[in-house]
This record gives sequence, C-alpha cells and structure tokens, in this order.
Amino acid sequence: MLDLPSAHMPTVAVIGSGSWATAIVKILSERPIKINWWMRSEESVKHIKAFAHNPKYLSDVQIDLNKVAPTTNLNKTIEESKYIILALPAAFIHQALKDVKESQWKGKKFFSAIKGMIPDKHKIISDYLKDEHDISKKNLGVIGGPCHSEEVALERQSYLTISAIDPKHAEILAHLLNCRYIHTHVIDDVAGIEYAAVMKNIISLAVGITRGMNYGDNFQAVLVANAMQEIKRFLDIVAPFNKRDLNESAYLGDLLVTAYSQFSRNRIFGQMIGKGYTAKSAQLEMNMIAEGYYAVKSLMEINKKHKVDLPICEFVYNILYGNQSPTREIRVLEARLK
Amino acid sequence: MLDLPSAHMPTVAVIGSGSWATAIVKILSERPIKINWWMRSEESVKHIKAFAHNPKYLSDVQIDLNKVAPTTNLNKTIEESKYIILALPAAFIHQALKDVKESQWKGKKFFSAIKGMIPDKHKIISDYLKDEHDISKKNLGVIGGPCHSEEVALERQSYLTISAIDPKHAEILAHLLNCRYIHTHVIDDVAGIEYAAVMKNIISLAVGITRGMNYGDNFQAVLVANAMQEIKRFLDIVAPFNKRDLNESAYLGDLLVTAYSQFSRNRIFGQMIGKGYTAKSAQLEMNMIAEGYYAVKSLMEINKKHKVDLPICEFVYNILYGNQSPTREIRVLEARLK
Repeated sequence: MLDLPSAHMPTVAVIGSGSWATAIVKILSERPIKINWWMRSEESVKHIKAFAHNPKYLSDVQIDLNKVAPTTNLNKTIEESKYIILALPAAFIHQALKDVKESQWKGKKFFSAIKGMIPDKHKIISDYLKDEHDISKKNLGVIGGPCHSEEVALERQSYLTISAIDPKHAEILAHLLNCRYIHTHVIDDVAGIEYAAVMKNIISLAVGITRGMNYGDNFQAVLVANAMQEIKRFLDIVAPFNKRDLNESAYLGDLLVTAYSQFSRNRIFGQMIGKGYTAKSAQLEMNMIAEGYYAVKSLMEINKKHKVDLPICEFVYNILYGNQSPTREIRVLEARLK
Repeated sequence: MLDLPSAHMPTVAVIGSGSWATAIVKILSERPIKINWWMRSEESVKHIKAFAHNPKYLSDVQIDLNKVAPTTNLNKTIEESKYIILALPAAFIHQALKDVKESQWKGKKFFSAIKGMIPDKHKIISDYLKDEHDISKKNLGVIGGPCHSEEVALERQSYLTISAIDPKHAEILAHLLNCRYIHTHVIDDVAGIEYAAVMKNIISLAVGITRGMNYGDNFQAVLVANAMQEIKRFLDIVAPFNKRDLNESAYLGDLLVTAYSQFSRNRIFGQMIGKGYTAKSAQLEMNMIAEGYYAVKSLMEINKKHKVDLPICEFVYNILYGNQSPTREIRVLEARLK
C-alpha cells in the first residue's frame, strides 16, 4: 500500500447524495483531505450544513464539516477536485453531467462507484465517460465492492477493490479509502469489475423472483453457482482478460453480498415480481429504482451481437420485458441449470 | 440422462439413519426399486417398520415400506444391494464397517454422501475405502450437493452432482436420484468433490466464528470469495485436475448452501466459539457433531506436507486446536484476506 504524505493528499469530489455516496464521504473523512460533496437538492445541502447529517440516507452518519463541503454547484465541484467519484444511479448520470463545461474534465481522474449501465446507451460508466465526454482512458477507474453502505455506517470491517487504467491513480485512491474499518486493494480490470457489478444486480433480481416463488436455499446456491459461470462466459467475450480470477472479492464477493442480502433493492424488487406483481406496480410500491431492471435490458441488447449463453439474464428479461409468466420461465431455467 | 428400464433398476443400500440418509431414502423411493436401509438402532428400525417415519430425523417424511426395508444387519444389507450409499458421520464409518465380511465388498458400487474425513486416518472416504477395505477404485463414487435435507423433505427444487471413477455407475445413480424435485448431473472428479465438501465445513466454521464476533455481510462475502481461492489452491495440489470448474454447483453451490445457512451445524458451532465458548462446551451445548471440527485437524495434518497457503483453515485450526483467542486470530486473518 502506497504511503502518501498528508501534504500531497488530493481533493476528492463525491457526486451523488444516496447511501453509497454518504458512506464514501464517511470513509474519505478518515483522511486529512478536503471532500467536495455534490448533490442536486438545495434542501439536503442546507440540512447537512446545519446538522451534519444527510437527511435522507444513512442519517446516523455524522458528517465532518471541517473536511466535507456539500454543494449543488457541479462545475465548481469538478474544478476544485482532482479525483471525482461518481456515486449516483446510472439512470441519472447523463442528466447530472450534461451541463458540465468540457474544459472542466481535463486532467481529472474519474472513478465510478455506480453499479449499472447508462440506459438507452447500453454502456458501462467508463465507456460512457470515454465515448460521450471524451475523457481519456488513462483517467478512468472503478471502485468495486463487496460493500453494503449500511455496514460502513456501522464501521464493520469491509473490503473495497480499486481499479484504474493507470494503476498509479488506483493506488492513490486505494490509499485514501483505506482506514481502520476498510481494507482496500488494487487490481487491473476496470471493465470486468463494471460488467460483473451490472450482472450481479440482474442475478439478484433472479434470486428475488425465485424466492418470491418459494424456491429455497438449495436452489439459490445452484442459481448463484451457475450465475458465476454465466458472468464468466459474458466477461470473456465483452471484456476479455486472461488474468481475471472471478473468485476475487470484487466479482464473487460483490455478487454474494447482494444476492444473499434481504436488503438488496434488486432482490426485493424480484421477490415482488415472483409473487405476481407487475414490474410497474412493484416499482410504485418500492418507490425506488432497482438498477437490475434497466441493466438487464442493456445487457440483452449488447448480447444480441455476441449471443453468449445467458440463461439467468434471459429468465429475468423474458419476465420483465417479454411479458412471460414467472411460472413458465422458471421451468425453462430449472432445466438449464445444473 | 440415462434411460433405464424399470426391470434393470438395481437394489440400493443406504447406510446411516440421519437426516441426509433419510432424505436420500425419500428421493430413491420415487423410483420403482428396493432400498435396504441400514441403521445401528433396533428401536429406530422398529419405529420405522411400525409407523413409516424415522423417529429422530426428518420425522415428517413418510417412508414407503413397499420399497424400503429398514434393518440393523449390515452384512445382509450389503450382500443384497448393488449400490451402497454411505450417509453417516465420517467419525462413525470405521466403527460401522469394521465387521463387514471382506467377501461382501466384491463388485459392489460405493457412493459416499459423507462430507468429512476419517479422523486419525486423515483420509477422504474414497481413499479410506480403497486403502482400508481394498475396494477397487472403479467401484467408488460420491454424491455432491448443494442440498439441505430439510428442503428435500419439503420437495423444494434441488440439484445433486454425482461422480464416480467409472462414469457408467455415476450415470446409473444419477438416474436413480433424479425425480420431480431433484435434478442430477454427472461430472468427473471424485476426490475434488470430496475435498471441497470437507473444506466447506471448515469455511462454515470460520463464517460462524466471525459472525459470533459480530462481523457482518460485507466481511462474510470477502471471506467466502477468499475461501474459494483457498479451496482452489489446496485442490490443485491434493487432487489436481485441469478440467475442474470450481464455480460448478458441487463446489461453489455446496459451499454457499452451508456458509449462508442459519441451520448449518458447523456455522452454529463456530458462532458459539466466536462468542467465547470453548470447543468442548460448544459441543456439549449443541449435543451434535460439527464435521468441520475434525476436518480442520485432518486437513492441517495433510497440509504439513504440502504447505499450501490456507489462511482461513489456519484461522479455524489455531482457535480450535492452538488455544489462540478469536480476537487475536481475526486480526491476522483480516490482513490476509483481500
């Protein structure tokens, strides 16, 4: 692990106001650095400045206002920060970034902490930043799990995997995120970590659907084992890399923490589908976004070209977008697993 | 899948009276075959013959006495059966088999459904049968999970993986165990499946210990991901096989169903250790055997020769046999995971 003198600690921006953004702000606050925290809501900024707590997410976490500057000014946030951590739902990122002046991007290091794809564009975040905002590849990276933000709030031991095209930047961010309750390490596989994180949300939807249909632990274990093989087949085509070990924490660990959590939004959404809710009514009922819902559409779109065998993603897609009943699709899936 | 005419269905013996033995008897009873069910207890045999239920384990399961013959006569059981399924704790097997006449073994096909090693001898079951009872390798096989017997009792969809040195016998047993709630498939890796099943119990102990110490979901996800890498390192040395995919159900699935189950004996035992019980008092309190407790001793014994890097097994061993406190050992483990 890099040993960085305090004087050289860069200013970091966190973009987003949700629970994962709040957890990252908390972790970074363990270091003697300045953190510019951007969010859309004026009200939230005011509340945080007045009470040192995010009013909506992880409200128990105390925000250190000596280090953290909440703001709604995105251009200024990016201008004044060297490392930019994106931590908002993938569906909102295009809207959030569209007014940033091109000149602001230059030289900034962007790390995605987002586990989703840009809807309609069907792109992982690093590809989106490269293609749509002309950000140089060498300035791109990703923060991988497995990490429930709720457990970060409780300071329970957790691990993060950092990756960047330029490993020097990954080392620096890993250093900044390392603290008494967070272990970090660096691996080389930006696109692989991103695609795996997208797929784990789809797998969690599948777990939820089968749970909703009263399938048990035995079935879930087989589903998750088969999911790992499915992720491997897909990654080997869309992001080939012969040094990847899918059993590392950023892949298998990240899948497990989501698939086995009762609190996973994707799993809860899936459970409602399995119990017979329509996608629309499940979304209304939950009043939040399950990333996997959009992700499976993008993934299947990408796979039209590659034609990788993806029985679990197909299962989810056919139910959510193909108007097929879970009872019919589960028969097909059961026979394809082993 | 093999299509076997009813007339050629072989007689099968199930050795053991626990919940997994009872579940296997239930599954086999879906076929038109005779099942000789051996157990030590005269009382249990009488109870089953009178009431068609195992008095002690999975008592809700109805035993079909038209097909199933409970008995305490082991020599006769083996003599009258072609396929012998061993489903009793590894610690009891040597005692149970020691009086069987050598002549009875000949030509019989032995499948282990045991997830443990023979204590003191430090051997997986297939090696034990080969070395101690001179059973030909070509007559040996294994039944792999992931499968909680409780869910088999409820007829929830489950999957079994069958392996044998002679694949023909694996195909036949897979056919016999395949039914409306059990999917079976055959792979080629007897020793690998056995060692992985032994290790998953040790991993579950580690999960339990850390849970008992109040570590959360994030940590468990990292622990299990690292465990898969640890299993791979060990299997590559003790049972090398270049076609093995550890993400198949018999390995990863089997680990998940145990590590994430609140009902796993190994996990519960570990949890008590993590909360400060001694191994002896935890055993007294639970009144049952956690296979992992013996397995970790055998595994570390075997590894004296190989010196594979096994941080999680060492963690468990040092606590259970090295008189080290969990609080000390967890610091070492934390730093070795990533």
